[in-house]
Amino acid sequence: MNKQIILKQRPEGEVDSNTWVLQKVAIPKPLVGEVLVQVNYISLDPAMRGWMNDSKSYIAPVDLDAVMRAGTIGTVIEANGHPQFVVGDVLTGWGGVQQYFTTNGEGHFKVDTSMVPMQKYLGALGMPGMTGYFGILEVGKIKEGEVVLVSGAAGAVGSVAGQIAKIKGCKVVGIAGGPKKCQYVVETLGFDACIDYKNESVYKGIKAHCPKGIDVYFDNVGGEILDAALAQLRREARVVICGAISQYNNKEAIIGPKNYLSLLVNRATMQGMVVFDYAARYKEAGMQMGMWMMEGKLHTEEDVYEGIEQFQNTYERLFTGEKRGKLLLKIIEE
Amino acid sequence: MNKQIILKQRPEGEVDSNTWVLQKVAIPKPLVGEVLVQVNYISLDPAMRGWMNDSKSYIAPVDLDAVMRAGTIGTVIEANGHPQFVVGDVLTGWGGVQQYFTTNGEGHFKVDTSMVPMQKYLGALGMPGMTGYFGILEVGKIKEGEVVLVSGAAGAVGSVAGQIAKIKGCKVVGIAGGPKKCQYVVETLGFDACIDYKNESVYKGIKAHCPKGIDVYFDNVGGEILDAALAQLRREARVVICGAISQYNNKEAIIGPKNYLSLLVNRATMQGMVVFDYAARYKEAGMQMGMWMMEGKLHTEEDVYEGIEQFQNTYERLFTGEKRGKLLLKIIEE
Repeated sequence: MNKQIILKQRPEGEVDSNTWVLQKVAIPKPLVGEVLVQVNYISLDPAMRGWMNDSKSYIAPVDLDAVMRAGTIGTVIEANGHPQFVVGDVLTGWGGVQQYFTTNGEGHFKVDTSMVPMQKYLGALGMPGMTGYFGILEVGKIKEGEVVLVSGAAGAVGSVAGQIAKIKGCKVVGIAGGPKKCQYVVETLGFDACIDYKNESVYKGIKAHCPKGIDVYFDNVGGEILDAALAQLRREARVVICGAISQYNNKEAIIGPKNYLSLLVNRATMQGMVVFDYAARYKEAGMQMGMWMMEGKLHTEEDVYEGIEQFQNTYERLFTGEKRGKLLLKIIEE
Repeated sequence: MNKQIILKQRPEGEVDSNTWVLQKVAIPKPLVGEVLVQVNYISLDPAMRGWMNDSKSYIAPVDLDAVMRAGTIGTVIEANGHPQFVVGDVLTGWGGVQQYFTTNGEGHFKVDTSMVPMQKYLGALGMPGMTGYFGILEVGKIKEGEVVLVSGAAGAVGSVAGQIAKIKGCKVVGIAGGPKKCQYVVETLGFDACIDYKNESVYKGIKAHCPKGIDVYFDNVGGEILDAALAQLRREARVVICGAISQYNNKEAIIGPKNYLSLLVNRATMQGMVVFDYAARYKEAGMQMGMWMMEGKLHTEEDVYEGIEQFQNTYERLFTGEKRGKLLLKIIEE
């Protein structure tokens, strides 16, 4: 049987036990030209929260009674005359939260797992890594010697963005929750400093570590932390709006950045990004990041939980912060 | 005697009768290398509110007990061996809210009043006009065929920004307060439409006049109108943050744009500007705008009140909206 997580009810605020149900259906048969994929890992991403809202966004909402959308990596276990994919191929794409799916291959890409473990293709070599890469380089436009601040610094996106800024010769300060994560950000990821937003004033932390202000702020969180950063921008600073995890579960209107007029005073720019726009350049970025990984310059981690039954518990870690690096759920039953 | 308006107390919220006092001092004598200028007009600008706050900004605050800062245009009535300026020259610069001042000429520029009346140098050919020009062209980066929304459309900055967008082949929708101003924006300034924020929903007005959304929003007001615009951005839209008059008198923290995540969804950019950064190009812009004025493509108006005693009443019109075009106070007593 194929276990699937189905979206039953759109959450208001946080997800609860009515949001999803686990259902078992027959394992589908691949039609001619299709393959059957067994899912190895699914990716858990803050963006999932937005996909459940019935509102216009950069991607259509997940339909009610449909399989919950998720990035996946899986293995072809049956091929029915597919022009390109054969049994044993490892595919990454939008398989959803389920154990098996069939596909004609559209939106799925074969990856090479001879050099890197497959789960990296959902992390540093997948959407989060691409987001960090293009966000910090193309939107942040970092230059050597600049001061870069990154929130969600221990996470899948922020850890990549910050390490790339270090590689490019910037001073990099992270923001993360708790002493353990901050230690990881500085000692393992090599940031110059890390502000523990759970135990200290972010405003004062920025002032202490960036006394001349910030040239680039890479924002994954929104809310008060965004305001603290805006208050300390330098002239012609860039603020990369990559996400706003502090606001995703708000039932009411989200809280806007009250310090946005710092953009005026400092002739600064706040720009949003969606990683899909850079799809034509994923390969180039993947090769560059793979090289940095092999050279030991780019450290990437996955935090892996197991079993489709654990989907909701694992998802909730995104918002409680109880995870480090890329959050994954191992689906295949070994 | 020289009548001056002195900043006596920093306002919290709106200015009141304790903010300024009028004082009379002797008319100063120009030192060697200086000129004595009799002020013809002073410029009233929303930015004045910010200059009175004791906080870091793009320009130092006005000191307590100092003459209130203002842009001026005035006539040299005495020259004490100035290397450049002679009696009869008309100078624009930061003379402040007073009838006479002396200067060594730093920050003051001689203007040619043979072709245009001198008050234009505080309006379309001064800071407001330059702000509209560089804001819409350099920050807004308008392209032919785009949809441009301008708040404060009947004002000194917005009227220029919007008319330039029309000249460049954009569809231009204004936002202004009251039917008279809206009529002026459409019939006299030639905008395609104007939304009356005092009598209709700005959100619905944008939806009606910009059914496919906005490519460029030129914001002079902030607050709810900014949010209504953000909600209706197109892909890769640009939001020019030129001012936020709705927020300048807030005693509490200003209200941030709760729809700022539209920047993310739409890969849009919000960028602040300060006109001083374009000082090296004022002349080029002035020549271009002068040409458009002579060709009848750029309509500019001043709303002139009279007498330094009327300073506070006139200033308050900036915030009540009871003015049209560039707000000026005529200082010289004829």
